Amino acid sequence: MLLHAFWLGLICLSGGEPVTPTTPDPYQSSTGRFSHGQLTQWNMQYGSPLYVYDGDLITQKFEQFQSAYKNAFGEAKVLYAIKANTNMAIVSLLKKSGAGAECISGGEISTALKLGFEGENILFTSSAKTPAELELAIRNGVVVNLDSLEDLNHAGKVATRLKTKARISFRVNPDVDPHTHKHIATGHKFSKFGILLENDEIIRAYDQAKKHEWLEVWGLHSHIGSQITESEPFSDNARVLSHFIKRLKNELGIQLKFVDLGGGLGIPYHDGQISVSPKVVADKVAEILKSELKDLGYMPEIWLEPGRYLVGDSGILLATVVSVKDTPYTDFINVDTGFNHLVRPILYEAYHRIRVLNRQDDIRLFDVAGNICETGDVLGHNRLLPTPVAGDVIAILDAGAYGYTMASMYNSFDLPAEIMVRADKVELIRKRKTLEALLEGQIVPDDLK
Amino acid sequence: MLLHAFWLGLICLSGGEPVTPTTPDPYQSSTGRFSHGQLTQWNMQYGSPLYVYDGDLITQKFEQFQSAYKNAFGEAKVLYAIKANTNMAIVSLLKKSGAGAECISGGEISTALKLGFEGENILFTSSAKTPAELELAIRNGVVVNLDSLEDLNHAGKVATRLKTKARISFRVNPDVDPHTHKHIATGHKFSKFGILLENDEIIRAYDQAKKHEWLEVWGLHSHIGSQITESEPFSDNARVLSHFIKRLKNELGIQLKFVDLGGGLGIPYHDGQISVSPKVVADKVAEILKSELKDLGYMPEIWLEPGRYLVGDSGILLATVVSVKDTPYTDFINVDTGFNHLVRPILYEAYHRIRVLNRQDDIRLFDVAGNICETGDVLGHNRLLPTPVAGDVIAILDAGAYGYTMASMYNSFDLPAEIMVRADKVELIRKRKTLEALLEGQIVPDDLK
Repeated sequence: MLLHAFWLGLICLSGGEPVTPTTPDPYQSSTGRFSHGQLTQWNMQYGSPLYVYDGDLITQKFEQFQSAYKNAFGEAKVLYAIKANTNMAIVSLLKKSGAGAECISGGEISTALKLGFEGENILFTSSAKTPAELELAIRNGVVVNLDSLEDLNHAGKVATRLKTKARISFRVNPDVDPHTHKHIATGHKFSKFGILLENDEIIRAYDQAKKHEWLEVWGLHSHIGSQITESEPFSDNARVLSHFIKRLKNELGIQLKFVDLGGGLGIPYHDGQISVSPKVVADKVAEILKSELKDLGYMPEIWLEPGRYLVGDSGILLATVVSVKDTPYTDFINVDTGFNHLVRPILYEAYHRIRVLNRQDDIRLFDVAGNICETGDVLGHNRLLPTPVAGDVIAILDAGAYGYTMASMYNSFDLPAEIMVRADKVELIRKRKTLEALLEGQIVPDDLK
Repeated sequence: MLLHAFWLGLICLSGGEPVTPTTPDPYQSSTGRFSHGQLTQWNMQYGSPLYVYDGDLITQKFEQFQSAYKNAFGEAKVLYAIKANTNMAIVSLLKKSGAGAECISGGEISTALKLGFEGENILFTSSAKTPAELELAIRNGVVVNLDSLEDLNHAGKVATRLKTKARISFRVNPDVDPHTHKHIATGHKFSKFGILLENDEIIRAYDQAKKHEWLEVWGLHSHIGSQITESEPFSDNARVLSHFIKRLKNELGIQLKFVDLGGGLGIPYHDGQISVSPKVVADKVAEILKSELKDLGYMPEIWLEPGRYLVGDSGILLATVVSVKDTPYTDFINVDTGFNHLVRPILYEAYHRIRVLNRQDDIRLFDVAGNICETGDVLGHNRLLPTPVAGDVIAILDAGAYGYTMASMYNSFDLPAEIMVRADKVELIRKRKTLEALLEGQIVPDDLK
C-alpha cells in the first residue's frame, strides 16, 4: 500500500533513503519505561504472547489517586475495582499500598478474603446477587451494596437467617451521562444498575433498611460509567448525591458512614490524548460536596473505586509476528494473539497503541490482525508502523485493565503468562495456561471413546 | 411497564383475569425436545448455570447435512469446524458419525489427534500459523490450508526441515458478499483471510507449491462467512471456484484432490425464521460445479466444513433468576449468567430466544440482564415473557455453537458444567470450573503475601 505523501515527505529526506524520524516520531515507538530490547527478551524467555505489568507504575498511580482525594477531603477510602485485573499479585500490591477491594461476585470476594482484606474494606456491588453470594458477604462483614428492593429483601432474609448484622448501602442511578461507550455507561436511566432517584423508591428502600433488625445502613453509592476522561460527569454525580444525602438526613434522620462516588476515571489510550487527572476531579467534587453539605451537621467518608485508572496503563501485551501479508487493499501484520487475549478492540471498538519493536524502516499503514478465525479479529486498523518480519515482537500498550481478566481459550489457544516488574526485579505472576487446562474436567462417554 | 394493548387483549379475555394464550403462544414457550420440568431439574442437579446439549439432534443434523451433499455429489467429506464447540464428547460424537475435523490452531489439532482423527481427515486453516503449529500439522499428515505466499514459504521450510511431504491447499478469497454480520463475513476483499483471486498471486502460489519437493498440492479452499441463511452466496462462491479450478488445470496442469466449499450454513435464531436447508444449497452448488466442470476431465472431491449448523440448535444455556426489577423505563429479569458464558449477544448483537420455564402468567416486556458488571450485559432486550420469581430457571436457546467455546472467567464467576442427552441418557461431559481453576498458576511474590 502506498504511503500518503505527507509521510513519504517525512521519511524520505535524504536522497530517497528512509531516515529514522526524530521526535515527535510520526509512527510513535515509545514503550514507556521498558525498552524494546527488554520486552523482546521477556517475550522470548517467558513465552509468547505475554502480559507484562509495571508494578511501580501501579503503586505510583495509586498514591497519586489516593493523595488527590486525601488532600481534597482530608479522609478518603480507595477501593480497587478488582474486576479490572484480578491477578492476585496485582491485587496484593494494591492492598499493600493501602487499597480496599470493590468486588462484584462471590469469586472476587473469595479472592479478596484469601488475600487478607477485612470485610469492612470490601464492597460487594452487583445487580444479581445470589443467596450464596449474599451469605458469603454477610458472614464476612463485607459491605453489601444493594441494587433493588428485591435485593434488599434478599439481604434482609439472609442476615436474619444468619443472625448477623449486614452492612449495607444502596446503589442509586443518578441518570447522569458519562460521555463514554454505550456498553460501559452505567448511570443512565435505562441501565440495569441501581435504584432511580426520580420516584421515591430509594427513600422507601432506606426507610425499610433502617427499620430492619439485621441491617445496618452504612452508605450511598453511585457509579456512572467507565473510561470517563472529563470532570463534568463526576461533578454532576456529586451534585445529585449531595441533594440525596440531605434528603436522607432530613426525611429519615439517616446519617451515612460513607458516600461512594464510584470509579470510572479513564486513561489516555491515544498518543497525545489528554485525560482529566484525579486531582482535578477530586478538587471539583470536594468543592461541590463541601459546599452542598455544609449545613448538614456531618460529613460522610468519601469512598472511591478506581480500576482502570490504577492498572490500565501499567500493562503491555506482547505478541510475535507470524507473517506479513500485503494485498491490493490492506496490508496485514499477522500475530500470535487475538481477541481471545484482548477483547477490548472488537467488543468496545477500543483503540490500543501498537508498537513494532526493534524496527524503524519501511513505515506504512497496516492492519494488525489477530489469529482468531474471525474477520473482526483485528487488534488495530490503519496503523502507521515500520514493516516487521516473522519472529519480530509487537507491544500492545495500555492492556493492564480488562485484558487478561476478560481472556478466554476460544480457538483452543493457550492463555498468556503474566510477569510483573518492580524496580529491576522481574517476577512471573501467572503461569501460561495450556491446552491441558482446557481439556481438564471434560468427560468423553465410554461408547464414544 | 404497561403492556401494549394488543397483548392485553390477548391475555385478558376472561373478565380481567389473565389466561394462558393458546397456540400459537404469543410469547413462545417451546424448549424443543426437553420439557420445562426436565430442564429445571437438570439445572438443580448439575448446578446453575448449565449448558445442555441434545446429542441426538447433533447426530441427526450431521446425517442430514452429509446426505444432502452425498446425494448431490456422490461423494463428499464433511469436516466439523470444531471451533464452534470443542467439547470432546461432542467432537467424538461427530467423529463416530463420520465427520473429519476442521481445525484452526495447534490446540484444536492436538485435540483432534487425541480423539483419533487421521491426519488426512483434518484440515488446518489459519491466517497466522506459527512454526510450531506447522510442524505439528505436517508431522501428523494434517492438510495445511495456506493463507498467503509467506505462509507457503513457511510451510515449505518446515516440510523441508522435517523431510516430510506436506499436504497443502490454498484458501482463496473470492470476494463474495455473504450477507451476514461484518465480524463474521470472511470472504470479501478487505478480510484478512485467503489469497485474492483478482491478481494472479494465487496462480503463482500454486505454481511454486507444485514445484516444491516437499509440498503436495491437495486442494482449493474458500470460506465466505458464517451464519448465512440463503443459498446465493454459496452459489456465487461455487461459480468463482469452478472458474479457478479450470485455470489450475489449463494453465498449470494441476488436478486437485478436493475443493473445500467452506462452512457458513446458518440456523434460525428467531421463532418462525426460515433458513436455507443443506439440501437446497447442496443441489444448487452441485448443479453449478457439475455444469461448469463437465469438460474438465475429472471431478475433485467436495469437502465441507459446517460448524454452527451441526451443533448450534442442540445447545441450551440454563440460568437461574436472581431477581426481578421493575423501573419506570425497563423491567429487568436478573439472572446468574452473562456475557462471560454467552458472548454472542454483546459481541455480534446476536439474538437468542429466551424462555422462562414453568411460568405462563403476567406476560410483559423484559430485558433479561446478565450478572456481569457492565451495562451492555443484556442477554435479550424487549422480550415478551411471563413474570418469573427468584429461583425460577430460564433457557437461552441455540447456544450450542460459539457458546461455551468463547466463555471466560471474567468477573471471577465459575464456568458452567455441560451435559449431553442421548435418548434417555443424561451424561456430564464437562465439570463446572470453579474459582480454583482461575487462581491456579498465579504466584504472589513473597514480599506481597
